[in-house]
Amino acid sequence: MTKIDHVGIAVASLEQAVPLYAALLGDEPADREEVPDEHVRVVLFGRGDGRVELLEPTRPDSPVGRFLEEHGGGIHHVCLRVPNVEEALGRAREHGVEILPPGVREGAGGRAVAFLHPSSTGGVLIELAEDPDA
Amino acid sequence: MTKIDHVGIAVASLEQAVPLYAALLGDEPADREEVPDEHVRVVLFGRGDGRVELLEPTRPDSPVGRFLEEHGGGIHHVCLRVPNVEEALGRAREHGVEILPPGVREGAGGRAVAFLHPSSTGGVLIELAEDPDA
Repeated sequence: MTKIDHVGIAVASLEQAVPLYAALLGDEPADREEVPDEHVRVVLFGRGDGRVELLEPTRPDSPVGRFLEEHGGGIHHVCLRVPNVEEALGRAREHGVEILPPGVREGAGGRAVAFLHPSSTGGVLIELAEDPDA
Repeated sequence: MTKIDHVGIAVASLEQAVPLYAALLGDEPADREEVPDEHVRVVLFGRGDGRVELLEPTRPDSPVGRFLEEHGGGIHHVCLRVPNVEEALGRAREHGVEILPPGVREGAGGRAVAFLHPSSTGGVLIELAEDPDA
């Protein structure tokens, strides 16, 4: 079943953005973490499917830092939950989709994830996250 | 409970985009419709929460048409499901958020929806959709 796992939103300041999203959603953040490898601080709203993930870069020369500099804040990526990442990547390649290096990696919660290059998906940075129950 | 209802993705051509998303998701579209008021053709993947909504403009001088011209394809908006749109808008206004005219309107499926101006939400066009069961 098709499901959006989460939407990643790049923000300049979690301190400003978190109260706004808490007000909109009428809900407090479910989780906070720092991902040193990606140079981001993360705040998650919701649990399970359809979470909102706020991303604040910890340094400007990181993927999210560069996105902020180029675009200002905004939706950075959408993560789709799929039953099997390798199978989904195989089908994606048949459609000419470029997989971002290093390909399949370990994401949050130990799940297998991969990212698709926006230039090959009509301008959308798509993350695929494996959920065998999806 | 915080939930993403759907993510709206602007595409130049449904004919090209639908097979790509079907391949990624391993799933066929759940629904297709044309929304004459918004000058878009819509294809939806999934049911319930976390749907992917592909939007192809039927004319260039429409909101989605102008988005495509300015940004190329990409994520156009994120729709959050809230228990009560008026209450969520009240909280949003307290945070200085600007509501796009005409304010609360009838959206797909007869739900009350409203849009928040990206300039007041850190660059994200946010749709709020009312779901009393949310």
